[in-house]
Amino acid sequence: MRAEDRVRRVRSLLGSVRAEGRTALTAPEGRVLAEAYGIAVPGEELAADVDEAVAAAARFGGPVVLKVVSPDILHKTEAGGVVVGVEGAAEVRAAFRRIVGNARAYDAGARVDGVLVQELLPAGQELIVGAVTDPAFGKVVAFGLGGVLVEELRDVTFRLAPVRADEALSMLDSIRSARILRGVRGRPGVDRWAVAEQIRRVSELIADFPEIAEVDLNPVIATAGGAVAADIRVILAERQPVPRRTYTREEILASMRRLMQPRAVAVIGASNEPGKIGNSVMRNLVDGGFAGDIHPVNPRADDILGRKAYRSVTDVPGEVDVAVFAIPARFVAGALEEVGRKGVPNAVLIPSGFAETGEHGLQAEIVAIAERHGVRLLGPNIYGYYSTWQDLCATFCTPYDVKGGVALTSQSGGIGMAVLGFARTTRTGVSAIVGLGNKADLDEDDLLTWFGEDPHTECVAMHLEDLKDGRAFVAAARATVPKKPVVVLKAGRTAAGARAAGSHTGALAGDDAVYDDILRQAGVIRAPGLNDMLEYARALPVLPAPRGDNVVIVTGAGGSGVLLSDAVTDHGLSLMEIPPDLDAAFRRFIPPFGAAGNPVDITGGEPPSTYEATIRLGLADPRVHALVLGYWHTVVTPPMVFAELTARLVAEFRERGVEKPVVASLAGDVEVEEACRYLFERGVVAYPYTTERPVAVLGAKYRWARAAGLLGGGS
Amino acid sequence: MRAEDRVRRVRSLLGSVRAEGRTALTAPEGRVLAEAYGIAVPGEELAADVDEAVAAAARFGGPVVLKVVSPDILHKTEAGGVVVGVEGAAEVRAAFRRIVGNARAYDAGARVDGVLVQELLPAGQELIVGAVTDPAFGKVVAFGLGGVLVEELRDVTFRLAPVRADEALSMLDSIRSARILRGVRGRPGVDRWAVAEQIRRVSELIADFPEIAEVDLNPVIATAGGAVAADIRVILAERQPVPRRTYTREEILASMRRLMQPRAVAVIGASNEPGKIGNSVMRNLVDGGFAGDIHPVNPRADDILGRKAYRSVTDVPGEVDVAVFAIPARFVAGALEEVGRKGVPNAVLIPSGFAETGEHGLQAEIVAIAERHGVRLLGPNIYGYYSTWQDLCATFCTPYDVKGGVALTSQSGGIGMAVLGFARTTRTGVSAIVGLGNKADLDEDDLLTWFGEDPHTECVAMHLEDLKDGRAFVAAARATVPKKPVVVLKAGRTAAGARAAGSHTGALAGDDAVYDDILRQAGVIRAPGLNDMLEYARALPVLPAPRGDNVVIVTGAGGSGVLLSDAVTDHGLSLMEIPPDLDAAFRRFIPPFGAAGNPVDITGGEPPSTYEATIRLGLADPRVHALVLGYWHTVVTPPMVFAELTARLVAEFRERGVEKPVVASLAGDVEVEEACRYLFERGVVAYPYTTERPVAVLGAKYRWARAAGLLGGGS
Repeated sequence: MRAEDRVRRVRSLLGSVRAEGRTALTAPEGRVLAEAYGIAVPGEELAADVDEAVAAAARFGGPVVLKVVSPDILHKTEAGGVVVGVEGAAEVRAAFRRIVGNARAYDAGARVDGVLVQELLPAGQELIVGAVTDPAFGKVVAFGLGGVLVEELRDVTFRLAPVRADEALSMLDSIRSARILRGVRGRPGVDRWAVAEQIRRVSELIADFPEIAEVDLNPVIATAGGAVAADIRVILAERQPVPRRTYTREEILASMRRLMQPRAVAVIGASNEPGKIGNSVMRNLVDGGFAGDIHPVNPRADDILGRKAYRSVTDVPGEVDVAVFAIPARFVAGALEEVGRKGVPNAVLIPSGFAETGEHGLQAEIVAIAERHGVRLLGPNIYGYYSTWQDLCATFCTPYDVKGGVALTSQSGGIGMAVLGFARTTRTGVSAIVGLGNKADLDEDDLLTWFGEDPHTECVAMHLEDLKDGRAFVAAARATVPKKPVVVLKAGRTAAGARAAGSHTGALAGDDAVYDDILRQAGVIRAPGLNDMLEYARALPVLPAPRGDNVVIVTGAGGSGVLLSDAVTDHGLSLMEIPPDLDAAFRRFIPPFGAAGNPVDITGGEPPSTYEATIRLGLADPRVHALVLGYWHTVVTPPMVFAELTARLVAEFRERGVEKPVVASLAGDVEVEEACRYLFERGVVAYPYTTERPVAVLGAKYRWARAAGLLGGGS
Repeated sequence: MRAEDRVRRVRSLLGSVRAEGRTALTAPEGRVLAEAYGIAVPGEELAADVDEAVAAAARFGGPVVLKVVSPDILHKTEAGGVVVGVEGAAEVRAAFRRIVGNARAYDAGARVDGVLVQELLPAGQELIVGAVTDPAFGKVVAFGLGGVLVEELRDVTFRLAPVRADEALSMLDSIRSARILRGVRGRPGVDRWAVAEQIRRVSELIADFPEIAEVDLNPVIATAGGAVAADIRVILAERQPVPRRTYTREEILASMRRLMQPRAVAVIGASNEPGKIGNSVMRNLVDGGFAGDIHPVNPRADDILGRKAYRSVTDVPGEVDVAVFAIPARFVAGALEEVGRKGVPNAVLIPSGFAETGEHGLQAEIVAIAERHGVRLLGPNIYGYYSTWQDLCATFCTPYDVKGGVALTSQSGGIGMAVLGFARTTRTGVSAIVGLGNKADLDEDDLLTWFGEDPHTECVAMHLEDLKDGRAFVAAARATVPKKPVVVLKAGRTAAGARAAGSHTGALAGDDAVYDDILRQAGVIRAPGLNDMLEYARALPVLPAPRGDNVVIVTGAGGSGVLLSDAVTDHGLSLMEIPPDLDAAFRRFIPPFGAAGNPVDITGGEPPSTYEATIRLGLADPRVHALVLGYWHTVVTPPMVFAELTARLVAEFRERGVEKPVVASLAGDVEVEEACRYLFERGVVAYPYTTERPVAVLGAKYRWARAAGLLGGGS
């Protein structure tokens, strides 16, 4: 069927379903959709009475399935409305009467349109193929093992709809029980292309019709010879989402550049009174050393912190790039009008008192004003933002001046404060810290688009609770990931579990599963917790990218070696199988009872020269791609001696153009803490009292390198 | 069958299998075992030729299964040696010939004893019931879902064999897909008692016969009406384990008391020469402030650090409780003979150069000497040990003097150093730190037996790579857990994966699964990594035990509240459903746009009085059992103000006899670090820059409280 024909046919059917006030399609209606989109279903006929059913069964020949057809009965099996494997006139007759009786008993008021007579499908692997409308990502397609087990084990994977054929095929390998589909223990595998086609076509169907909320093919029976949907369920949306205002990439970059690299900043509500937000913001801008113009705006002051104050932003001479609002919520709309008239492209709305306190009307009002004037809004309800390389601290917190490669954003102010404290105590090198708050306008996708281009930013880390436009975020992530890692802490992982769902796929799509799959597909590194996000943010820009999969552990403590090996496996890394010549080379330096192989266990009592010789081997051999060091505090090799020799070796090889990620776990007395700081500052990611963290960071770097296409084997 | 009869019958059969040099039983032999132990199997007959097969099938009536019987073919299905659902003489005849032909094609040299004709089992849930011999735990019984899926998803659980009926039944609820066994979506559940009986009987079978290595009932077909093993496979051990010398609980406690609370310590190899281990040990004993006698032993010195030195330990006057060895490995045997003659009950062997360097003979020699004299050995190859409440630092490291409730042990010296450094930097209150090293004699179970009784020890944390006697450890853990938490970091989690296995159960028992299940059954809290173990060790003694499941989050930052809720779910805790009266009480203190419910979100700008009022409510209400606090750094409520008010409230309620676990996540600038230290010292487990860690610690405390029977609902 031609694309426009099938769309017309389906739309007309959906229109009539809507006209009847229904949201669930009947089985025959589902079949019309399946046929229009080439979704394979078994042969079937609708029988209005017993005789028609007998005749239909006779035409199909073999055993058949009978199913009651009623717009009022969604769960046919539970209503006793399905009989499988009926053959011959007498059986068909009896079965027809039984299921119609069951249906009446289940719901006396249910309309019964007849009984569906279907070809009985062969035995095969039960699968589920479905599609749902996700609040963040819109139409997504799902695939998993079917039957009772899948609902218990939730072995299912999601993609943005529509999918290409190769994406659909990749879904078969994305479930935990993927091997079953390839055939195990003498059982044949399934027809992978046929399954992938069912996925692709369902994804097209839901993508073509915004009004379709959910589709379930459950089960799809897959054999070595094909894949057929035994049942199709389609549910329509109660209402359509309101389209969101969008900006082009160029528009986003233009306003973001002026936000993050401003030449002139106005502070609306600047104040001389200590304790006021307008005073803190002014002082942080001045004390932070911002080299551009700082214009206080306050109708009741002549000068603020020694700078001329203006009655209105419209009075400020010259262009203004950013207006920082430090006034109560109720005055924002008026001031924003003036900001708009002045042609300021960015308003940073620190005040709270909008949607987060139930004042949705006030928030809608300022969004409307901003859109009318083309002003982009950051916030409201935020601590402000830092653009470190501009010495810009447009916040009421405290200045931060350690310039570096990570851009951090947080939806919540509390998390923003944790970001600041952590960064300060670890001296994390930062390019920006941005509060997003209510996200009335500027969103993670806007910021990611900018940070992807920003040459100062080498890594982006974002705390978020939701995405207003998941697809825009995925697009920004896909554009950024080939250049730099994107780390996401998605809060509220478990809150979605209670989402009401009308289909099996819908039920499986709760519990954070959609976010998890789709963020991973976009190449995003998902941090399991706040502290992980902060450590990844701190460490990823420090490590060079790995050029291959071979990880070697060199350890002075056998016990650390075992734990580091556990961590390597936990984080999906590969312990290199050491080639015989390299093994022999390591053995020359370690005691006879030490263990070469991997981990390379140099044993505990060794002098600095043994650490140096073995680390040097690992750095020098091009077949080794990353080093994990396990240090054991001894009097023979004290912590700072180890730190200095390791940093020196890494620097020496870096000068020769050899850059490999090196991480270290230091086991010892408190002196190891100083050694770790020393190493971190010199490009070696080192932690005391933990074997997990250095490997977790290396694992995150590898996940990024795979997503960025720097390593073979795809993501 | 009487117990002695069935044992005699099985033993005689196993004897004849061994006599033939076989380790795998044939199906008919397996059936003999099944019948002896009441393991339900389908009716079957062995047919030597086609006519016997036809006759047997006719006797069973319905459809049958034909299986080739050959001592040389283990995997019958893969050999094409099984046909299912054959009915009538012609079909039986054809199937008989086909499978014999397949078997010959699979292995031309295979002996074929005939074909087994079995009743065809009804359709039902496929399960696996099996048993294996674990290197650490001995005979263990396994249960899981059967079929292809279980082997992919490894949804299986283990128990020490034999199991009681109630333990067997509990295994049905210990797998991830437990709900399937109870019946879901209209499918009936299985006969749980019948399944449990199969488990119990298999566990008895393997427990009765040390020579049986593995048993597989695979599949067991379970229906609402029963459970029948379609196939039984039994594999004999290649060789028997050597029994280990064991001590009674009283013997262990008597020698451990003298080790951990000694009155006199001798240092074999004490030295005046700085840099020597014998000098460090002496100095640490003296500087640590040990109040008992310290006797240096050194034939070439008159006094050491101002104390009279003896040529031999036999010259020391009076009783000696502990001899600490600081001499090279090759001199240990001779000195140990003298220690034995002197009647010293404990030798602490610091020297390396034994089994860990391949010198197994030397280690066996000292074990033999020790056993002859009744000396218990700690080590060799260790840093020594600390008994903090005795001011005893019998180690070559540095003294440690923060007395407290946690006893820490490590198998590896490197991990021991990490324990020391972490404890020092966090000021963890310690009762003991003990190195176990090669564990030539004293093992985790001995130490755990002692720490269970030691009144100073409130929590035990152990790093281990293996257990020499898993059953003794489980017994010690079961005796200890009702009194205090036991935390275990089991290293080498992923190394066991490569274990060769002759059965399905054997294959499923790799990958750490046995350790995980059996440690959990023993009530042990398993730490996922080194740093987790250290943090649990530091924090668990600080927290009081919870008296119920209701956890309430009170937070100043909504963003922290979401992350804390995620963590609560991740760690298996229950967010209390706040009763309406309590909800109303909370609402009186929080702004109208704040959120009561749980988390209780008091919002960010609140003064100390709001924190105080809401925390007080949580402490005062007896329906609330634990509090998770989320603090957000503001100028209105600075970090130390929050810390002081929280500590004051907790102390106030403690004085009134109200003790609840309170943990806190502090989001803010670096001042929150001091606030966390302040809180920790006052019984509130508080961490900066993380929402996960405080909840992880609370989760560990809850896991213990459940295992200790302090909460309803069992473990």
